[in-house]
Amino acid sequence: MKELKNILKAEAVRPLFKLFRIGLEKESQRITPEGCLAKTDHPKKVASRDIHPYIQTDFSETQMELITPVFDSSEETLRFLGALHDVALRSLDNEERLWPLSMPPILPEDDRDIVIAKLSDQGDVNYRRYLAKVYGKRKQMVSGIHYNFEFSEELLKEMHTLYFSTMSYETFRTEVYLKTSRHYLRYRWLITYLFGASPYAKEGYFIDEAPDEPIRSIRNSHFGYTNRPEIKASFESLTDYVSDIEHLVDNGDLIEAKEFYSSVRLRGADNLDELLEKGVSYIELRNIDLDPFAEYGTTLETLEFLHLFVMTMLWIDETEHSDKLLTDGVMLNDQVSLEHPLTKTALYEEGVWLMNQMTEMAEALNLSDKEKTLINEAKEQLEAPEKTLSARVVLAEEKEVAQNKELGTELGNVYYQRAFERPYQLSGYRQMELSTQIFLFDCIQNGIKVEVLDENDQFLKLTFNGRVEYVKNANMTSKDSYIVPLLMENKTVTKKVLAKAGYRVPLGKEFSSVAAAEARYELFAKKGFVVKPKSTNYGLGISIFKDGATFEDYQKALEIAFKEDSDILVEEFLEGTEYRFFVLDGKTRAVLLRVPANVVGDGVNSVEELVAEKNKDSLRGSNHRAPLELIQLGDLEQLMLKEQGLTISSIPEKEQIVYLRENSNVSTGGDSIDITEEMDESYKKIAESATESLGAKVCGIDLIIPNRKNKGCKNDNSYGIIEGNFNPAMHMHIYPFAGVGQRLTMDVLRLLYPEMTK
Amino acid sequence: MKELKNILKAEAVRPLFKLFRIGLEKESQRITPEGCLAKTDHPKKVASRDIHPYIQTDFSETQMELITPVFDSSEETLRFLGALHDVALRSLDNEERLWPLSMPPILPEDDRDIVIAKLSDQGDVNYRRYLAKVYGKRKQMVSGIHYNFEFSEELLKEMHTLYFSTMSYETFRTEVYLKTSRHYLRYRWLITYLFGASPYAKEGYFIDEAPDEPIRSIRNSHFGYTNRPEIKASFESLTDYVSDIEHLVDNGDLIEAKEFYSSVRLRGADNLDELLEKGVSYIELRNIDLDPFAEYGTTLETLEFLHLFVMTMLWIDETEHSDKLLTDGVMLNDQVSLEHPLTKTALYEEGVWLMNQMTEMAEALNLSDKEKTLINEAKEQLEAPEKTLSARVVLAEEKEVAQNKELGTELGNVYYQRAFERPYQLSGYRQMELSTQIFLFDCIQNGIKVEVLDENDQFLKLTFNGRVEYVKNANMTSKDSYIVPLLMENKTVTKKVLAKAGYRVPLGKEFSSVAAAEARYELFAKKGFVVKPKSTNYGLGISIFKDGATFEDYQKALEIAFKEDSDILVEEFLEGTEYRFFVLDGKTRAVLLRVPANVVGDGVNSVEELVAEKNKDSLRGSNHRAPLELIQLGDLEQLMLKEQGLTISSIPEKEQIVYLRENSNVSTGGDSIDITEEMDESYKKIAESATESLGAKVCGIDLIIPNRKNKGCKNDNSYGIIEGNFNPAMHMHIYPFAGVGQRLTMDVLRLLYPEMTK
Repeated sequence: MKELKNILKAEAVRPLFKLFRIGLEKESQRITPEGCLAKTDHPKKVASRDIHPYIQTDFSETQMELITPVFDSSEETLRFLGALHDVALRSLDNEERLWPLSMPPILPEDDRDIVIAKLSDQGDVNYRRYLAKVYGKRKQMVSGIHYNFEFSEELLKEMHTLYFSTMSYETFRTEVYLKTSRHYLRYRWLITYLFGASPYAKEGYFIDEAPDEPIRSIRNSHFGYTNRPEIKASFESLTDYVSDIEHLVDNGDLIEAKEFYSSVRLRGADNLDELLEKGVSYIELRNIDLDPFAEYGTTLETLEFLHLFVMTMLWIDETEHSDKLLTDGVMLNDQVSLEHPLTKTALYEEGVWLMNQMTEMAEALNLSDKEKTLINEAKEQLEAPEKTLSARVVLAEEKEVAQNKELGTELGNVYYQRAFERPYQLSGYRQMELSTQIFLFDCIQNGIKVEVLDENDQFLKLTFNGRVEYVKNANMTSKDSYIVPLLMENKTVTKKVLAKAGYRVPLGKEFSSVAAAEARYELFAKKGFVVKPKSTNYGLGISIFKDGATFEDYQKALEIAFKEDSDILVEEFLEGTEYRFFVLDGKTRAVLLRVPANVVGDGVNSVEELVAEKNKDSLRGSNHRAPLELIQLGDLEQLMLKEQGLTISSIPEKEQIVYLRENSNVSTGGDSIDITEEMDESYKKIAESATESLGAKVCGIDLIIPNRKNKGCKNDNSYGIIEGNFNPAMHMHIYPFAGVGQRLTMDVLRLLYPEMTK
Repeated sequence: MKELKNILKAEAVRPLFKLFRIGLEKESQRITPEGCLAKTDHPKKVASRDIHPYIQTDFSETQMELITPVFDSSEETLRFLGALHDVALRSLDNEERLWPLSMPPILPEDDRDIVIAKLSDQGDVNYRRYLAKVYGKRKQMVSGIHYNFEFSEELLKEMHTLYFSTMSYETFRTEVYLKTSRHYLRYRWLITYLFGASPYAKEGYFIDEAPDEPIRSIRNSHFGYTNRPEIKASFESLTDYVSDIEHLVDNGDLIEAKEFYSSVRLRGADNLDELLEKGVSYIELRNIDLDPFAEYGTTLETLEFLHLFVMTMLWIDETEHSDKLLTDGVMLNDQVSLEHPLTKTALYEEGVWLMNQMTEMAEALNLSDKEKTLINEAKEQLEAPEKTLSARVVLAEEKEVAQNKELGTELGNVYYQRAFERPYQLSGYRQMELSTQIFLFDCIQNGIKVEVLDENDQFLKLTFNGRVEYVKNANMTSKDSYIVPLLMENKTVTKKVLAKAGYRVPLGKEFSSVAAAEARYELFAKKGFVVKPKSTNYGLGISIFKDGATFEDYQKALEIAFKEDSDILVEEFLEGTEYRFFVLDGKTRAVLLRVPANVVGDGVNSVEELVAEKNKDSLRGSNHRAPLELIQLGDLEQLMLKEQGLTISSIPEKEQIVYLRENSNVSTGGDSIDITEEMDESYKKIAESATESLGAKVCGIDLIIPNRKNKGCKNDNSYGIIEGNFNPAMHMHIYPFAGVGQRLTMDVLRLLYPEMTK
């Protein structure tokens, strides 16, 4: 291929450098808490491997493979990989963990105890049986990361325009990938030097020959998982590549094309014929060892360096024939792989040259400081081998061994614990609403393809069984009609519709001016009533008068309410306890009682100490990052204590309940108590039929019930409906303070995909 | 019935005084512009009388009857009556008007020219034929208002509680209506005195005997439309009432119960048996003459006085036997009806006593000044008969006659003109959005029952063919799914969905910080691009760079955009003209080109004069109260003129187009030009299929088209989609500046009710 440096430097091309797409596949072995290979089957909690887009098994039943979708940035890809880890770890049986190293844990003596993945497709099973025979089961137990890289179409198209050739765009694209691949194969030794992380193997891996000392990468060396040396394909042209592999298959050297274990695979089609026709559209780099120090097997810095490295492979000019590049590449990579991690590499000189090429490119393309820093740090590692990953693994393992421990088991335990610290959150998506995080978790666990279309907007695209569904805020879907939430959003309209359908709602009036409301004072004066803004937000602007009010108090309440909205409601006050019914698809799925922030005395600790103790619950957090909020001891709480003749230092008696707030909102430290089972069926029926009257598929409907021991009846005063919520919170039902959590996110999923098996 | 004053004064009852419900029926004769009785059939533009809930005919084909629903206030009822008039008048054929007086216009000499209403139900026709025979057709041509009055359930229930009797609530309610009715029948002469408005009759009404002079109310006198004197029913009890009427029917004195033309009818059931069983639930007062000075036949003050009067009938104690009350009532009412309008009534003394009863009630119930004023004004009319309505009619008619004109024809013309002044508005609902006003008009015209559930929120409830549909902002309905507008609301998500489906959308990036956006400057620097807030509001915060921008200008644009939103978009600029496609139910219903505010020179007038002239168009108004906005000559417009070397005093050449704004928004004085017919089918197909990709039933989709003379093709650059709007404006398509208006509100109605015949 002609020189590309000037094209890459061109004004129209240079800005497109950062546009690319990557996807990762990451394998690891399931282990017991003690670090032994798991003996269980692939976890049942995740959807069947027949359909799962993200969670699969590689060679053995214990070798879990996590597959990310393709993203526009390393960061997004790594975030999704984090989410996959949370789902995988939380789905494992018997508290199993994932082994964080490329080289497997201690392997069983008996080959039969290494169980081939129990896939339902017999062809897939047969392929693995063949591999076991040809390579031995033990070599197949090695794990790693595959890095799928795609140049952006914008970049390639602009480059093609400037390339001035008769080549079609598709051919040009293939040539770009071929050049990149050849250089990658030639210079991949540097990746092994920097990121090699398989210096030693546990018992049971090596059968005969083995290195005497730790080396940079067993996996990347000839001790690793490679084809025999004679198995090779040309990267000179796509035709050569395809015909070489086809030849190997025809000769019986490979059972099929995918047995070709090159460090680079040309991708873009399901089979070689199709690849030849369509051209290469991305490459799969297969030589990345697992980084045991990274919770998810790799780091953002590694991924970003890999991008720079791949770009450099395109950048540098070709001076040698492709066959020589490949032959040299194999030899040099094996050489570096076998070096002791703490020694300087024999290829130091070429390493310096390569790093200079990277620097030159960074300068020419006006890359940012962040990228230049990454290059400089790699340069430093050329000087200081102890900074390389393989060296760090060796040193860390030595430390563990000195304490009779094992690096893999220890790190596996740490990562496992972390996955359970906040089980309601999902790694990578912690900025999203809790309900959406839980919903994302369920999607992934159930093998539903999910794409975050807009993170701030909680907007997801789901694909399952060939059908797309969009979901916003975890329960706003296509299943509700447009008018229904608009109806529920308007409290006056909601009440009119419910009253017309025969439900009890608080009687009341809507006013648009203080004067109009004042003129009607007499209507409410002597009864219990509530003044509130028409659109309520977190309970702001609401005044409650349980036994009527003076005109002056009424005026004050109007003033407060009109501050929040241009329209206000004055409604009769309904006596009783408020319960939230979560109704979905005609059925009450959860019933919640919300209790104001409180502590229960033990006769020993002060209010302050009791609050601190209660706040230790991992379900409590701040800013809606947890299902419950931390209890505060601010002005409002202290005032409330004062009214009870208490201070934060008072020591409540045993069993004494001390309330710290009047309102029961979970957002101000209240408790959520699930009473789905206990709630009488009669009230559930009322909530369900009222929801039907509103036409809603998903509704959080608030009922006031004076005494739930009595049966509820639609036509009497046994209840009153306060409002219907069209996007009801779910996390408080899923992770309640007390009672059984109701996995409402699963109900939403089943509403969207009733064909789901779980 | 026992005395009720103390109960009405009770604290729990008094505030409920103002709660009641009223509905009106208003008849009037259709006339030609010249004031002759119309010869046409009931207008075809309104839906069939077989189903129409609001627009019917009474006795003759020319006698249009407008029926309001029942409302909680006189004001609301009158508003709806106003809307009914707008619909009726705008639906009439041959520029017909409605005759504003109770007594008919000049009637044809030949009885056969008075055409009985051509109803499809033969029973209804036969009934009218019977009436023609028994009363003569001419008497049946008299029109008036029926006032249906219902006490609020709250009031009646509280009264019942305090009444301390073994009577059931239902019986009590009936007794309340009976007492009210007896008194109303006894004292209705005062209503005739105050509101009588049929002092004279035109030629053709009287056949033999006739009053010599004008009288207070022909309609309410024995010259009017009444039963023979011997036709009467007791109001002593419901049983008596029912059995008396049944007896009259059995004897053949009445053909059926509805022929009983009492000034009060007891209502609440479809027939007498049912009435006896269910009890009375409202009363129909039938003695109100049309007020010719009121555009809609009556005034708010009259309706409010009637309420007070009805309440007084309940208030005053019963001292005489019911039969005497009724007999006296008939006699006194006839007496007052026959008095000369300008004379003091012979019943002056009783009148003063009655007014004092009203005043006493107003004081005791603590009524407002407004209500006391109404009572005082009525009192004054007792002293000054020239202030009564009948006197005012006599005086006004005299004035017209002096000019060879006729009061009824003149006023009919005035009211007709008013109905067409702003045909896009609907009387009574002018505070609502224009599209909703037009939609309401179409509902009423098409016989769809409509209830405004929330006026500020543009929330309607429709009922047709037994099916309820809710509509907000005239096109937000149950036909769209909830997720679709959420998707369109989010520009990034919209673009992702459209791009995935293969449509051309402006490429771009979303940024959440200035730094992130600055870092990507190079991506856009040299091309045309647009910087905008993610959620655009009336075009605020948008910067357009048609040929790239310097880094400084880019920074400024970012700053401006971030002022409007925490997320911004930087997108490629698409060359071409923007068109709005309104797609509904898979079909492009309208295409609009919006042109910035402009004037076209005539070589004579200055810019200022041209603007003033253009602003005379009745389609222009301010604050969205008209389909087009007035063109302003503010700072922005003057700056724009300056850039063209002009001022507001410059005189543009003939045909010279002078633009006064850069943006094409209709809200800043732009022109809307309908090009639905002209737009090439290929672009409509693109708009339709893109809307389908978004899943929308109703969508305003904006396409940029470089040259619409070329055919559009989904897969090339012949177009670009800017955005989809989920609640697209409709009024600008219905009443465009130029081109044919597209009645989109009818398309929405047909979407909701495909079974509609029109």
